Amino acid sequence: MRVVNVGLPLFGDAVRAQGAAAVEVDWRIPASGRPELVAALQRLYGPVSERVDAANREVVRRLDEGAPVLLGVAPAVQVVPGMDDRTVLHCGPPLAWEDFCDPLRRSARASILAEGWAASPDEAERLVAAGRVRLEPANHHAAVVPMATTVGPSAPVFVVENPHGGNRAYSGINQGPGATAWFGQDTPEAVDRLVWLRDVAAPVLHATLAATGPVELLPFVVQGLQMGDDVHMRTQAATNLFLRHLLPALVTVGAPGLADVARFLSGNHLFFLNLAMAAAKAVTDSAAAVPGSSVLVGMARNGTTFGIRLAGTGDAWFVAPAPPVGRALYHPGFGPEVSAPDIGDSAVLELIGLGGPAAAASPVVAAFLGGTMADAVATTEAMARICAGRSSRFKLPLLDFRGTPVGVDARRVVELELTPSINTGILHASAGTGQVGAGVAEAPLACFQQALVALDEHLR
Amino acid sequence: MRVVNVGLPLFGDAVRAQGAAAVEVDWRIPASGRPELVAALQRLYGPVSERVDAANREVVRRLDEGAPVLLGVAPAVQVVPGMDDRTVLHCGPPLAWEDFCDPLRRSARASILAEGWAASPDEAERLVAAGRVRLEPANHHAAVVPMATTVGPSAPVFVVENPHGGNRAYSGINQGPGATAWFGQDTPEAVDRLVWLRDVAAPVLHATLAATGPVELLPFVVQGLQMGDDVHMRTQAATNLFLRHLLPALVTVGAPGLADVARFLSGNHLFFLNLAMAAAKAVTDSAAAVPGSSVLVGMARNGTTFGIRLAGTGDAWFVAPAPPVGRALYHPGFGPEVSAPDIGDSAVLELIGLGGPAAAASPVVAAFLGGTMADAVATTEAMARICAGRSSRFKLPLLDFRGTPVGVDARRVVELELTPSINTGILHASAGTGQVGAGVAEAPLACFQQALVALDEHLR
Repeated sequence: MRVVNVGLPLFGDAVRAQGAAAVEVDWRIPASGRPELVAALQRLYGPVSERVDAANREVVRRLDEGAPVLLGVAPAVQVVPGMDDRTVLHCGPPLAWEDFCDPLRRSARASILAEGWAASPDEAERLVAAGRVRLEPANHHAAVVPMATTVGPSAPVFVVENPHGGNRAYSGINQGPGATAWFGQDTPEAVDRLVWLRDVAAPVLHATLAATGPVELLPFVVQGLQMGDDVHMRTQAATNLFLRHLLPALVTVGAPGLADVARFLSGNHLFFLNLAMAAAKAVTDSAAAVPGSSVLVGMARNGTTFGIRLAGTGDAWFVAPAPPVGRALYHPGFGPEVSAPDIGDSAVLELIGLGGPAAAASPVVAAFLGGTMADAVATTEAMARICAGRSSRFKLPLLDFRGTPVGVDARRVVELELTPSINTGILHASAGTGQVGAGVAEAPLACFQQALVALDEHLR
Repeated sequence: MRVVNVGLPLFGDAVRAQGAAAVEVDWRIPASGRPELVAALQRLYGPVSERVDAANREVVRRLDEGAPVLLGVAPAVQVVPGMDDRTVLHCGPPLAWEDFCDPLRRSARASILAEGWAASPDEAERLVAAGRVRLEPANHHAAVVPMATTVGPSAPVFVVENPHGGNRAYSGINQGPGATAWFGQDTPEAVDRLVWLRDVAAPVLHATLAATGPVELLPFVVQGLQMGDDVHMRTQAATNLFLRHLLPALVTVGAPGLADVARFLSGNHLFFLNLAMAAAKAVTDSAAAVPGSSVLVGMARNGTTFGIRLAGTGDAWFVAPAPPVGRALYHPGFGPEVSAPDIGDSAVLELIGLGGPAAAASPVVAAFLGGTMADAVATTEAMARICAGRSSRFKLPLLDFRGTPVGVDARRVVELELTPSINTGILHASAGTGQVGAGVAEAPLACFQQALVALDEHLR
């Protein structure tokens, strides 16, 4: 007798106990057998599967073919659609002020101080409480911001265009290391950084980019993946390649503060992060116009909630509590007990094949995943199980140069109960002391389940 | 019957033909059984092995611990020991002018033209033939130069100090891509590049390094290996890290020609190559003072001969004809038939654990070794079989962060008949058209056999 045992190992064990051979198949009941989810999956993999598959192919094509171009730097209020002179953009899904986590609250106060609307964090707090500040998700304005970043009207943003989709996307300038608002600080030093980025760095970058002309962004990502970046947690290689590209223009801009800006760029290996995010937002927004698709075109966290959007369900957010960041390495003296939940819009990178899907590209990321490159490869392979395609341009040397997984399919996530892995930083939950570590967050399953049911209703 | 067959597979085959199992052991007669080599190996692995092993440990320690520091840029004649105002340094072992290969001959003529000693390549040629130019191996003057580079008295060199050894080493400034002397060209454009490097680039770099102060070099190598460099054929990551380190000083030097220098640096991903080589020369020279060691402290090629030096045999060179560069990829329209033999001092990198020993670090190098990372790992592992140690700082992500093999042991090379792999560029053999490809050269066995016999005689 030869036995193939599917599911519970108990039965296989019993066979083996009687001296016979049994092969185990690692299988679990789809969606834990929950009737409403199984019913939705049966329809989405059944009667409407051709329509969904075709839509997914189109979404993956847009995610894989978009070639966003950096046009320049401008004050947010001048270029970001729907932004007015009292708007502050924040990361993640929409959220009431009283639900803002501590780091994001501090960051918003820092932006308000940088705008000159208030003279102290307390005054800033009162201004918001009085409804005098319009808090808006960056994602609703073609923008994305990493970690606890907030963007006021005068804050400089990168302007990125996606010629394939005819759309634009925006992101703030990465604020760099140290005492900064994007790490959840509202100290005078953090506010000064915002003011300096606006008044000194932005004019230098503007003049530099005026001299270079438009810069296509993803070639730096393509090469960065061959150089140890996952282009989310680590953007060292892409940053350096980008800066070497800017170098001839940068040395000749003749703008005041150039030396300070050079020092800032020299010390900020995450400078390219915001550019990669804006590129990812540009291609996901162009893919968001495809009806009937079960592929994600939005994934963002505000430190309180974690939200996703599907191409096939329009503007709706499906949210769940923001998860903790697991598989983490902490700065000395910190640990999970003082860590804020997962935060920031940077998870948009995971939707186009970077970050978690590109873990196998990065020895540094591997350190967070168990320590060996085999651990990093396992993370990439897990993402492949829930993705609808492979990148034609983001190649993984360790997987014989196969592409990274692209296009998270909510059907597969719900069926396999396997959610995206997101490589990310960790902020202090309450003390305003900034970054305390980095790790890998697992997206909460609940929002994918809601999204699946909503898509099923859309398509009925 | 269970058979373990050592050596000729014929016997194993015969056993298997009769239906019995036979395990093959891949074993060959050491040194092909040549009596004088076997006798030398018997002594070097026998009566004097403790002395040799102890000396080798000391050599590996010096290769592994040296932490060279870049001090600045200066005209060669001012800093290079033993250099006078008619000296031109060249790559590789000593060589008579009539034996210079075409690319090296052209490069020497270009240096002579850049010095202003002659007005045409023909005149330069006559000057050398008349004995008016002193041609010296760079290696004899604490210097190393890549590919067909030559260095005249006024040419700028990097000054690198090895505090562990109390010694200094030198290398020219990398000449960059295009029509250049280091690729074997003597066109006006190639001469102009040498003049420009001396008159424009060197002052900018000098002022920049005066502002930064001493720069320790190997940390860029350590990180470069985590970012896809083998730090020989590819130095993209190390170059970028180094340039980002220089950036704050560079933008403020205020020297004329800064914009041109920035453009040159932006377009030269091999800029760090010469710095890595000078660092390698500094540590190998400090290891060269260890008597009784069978480990290599010199390996260089001039396009005609390939030479090595052992720590245990003093200043002696052991030479063989320069090999062709195999496992090559060629620029369109070129192939092995027009390729010059292996050339340049850059093989010094292979002695400290970079290049071939670090192949497993580099997806780009893998393209030359069969295409997959497994091929690159195999090259690293082959180097490990002939090396006396492992680097404590140059780590390979693909090998669970083990160190690269360091310290080529001539005993093992001769015993196993396995010579070092050297990642390198390929020049045109005759037409002066510059680089035609890149590939991996296998060091010729003959010079290792000579070196082994000489060491054996030294230690008797």
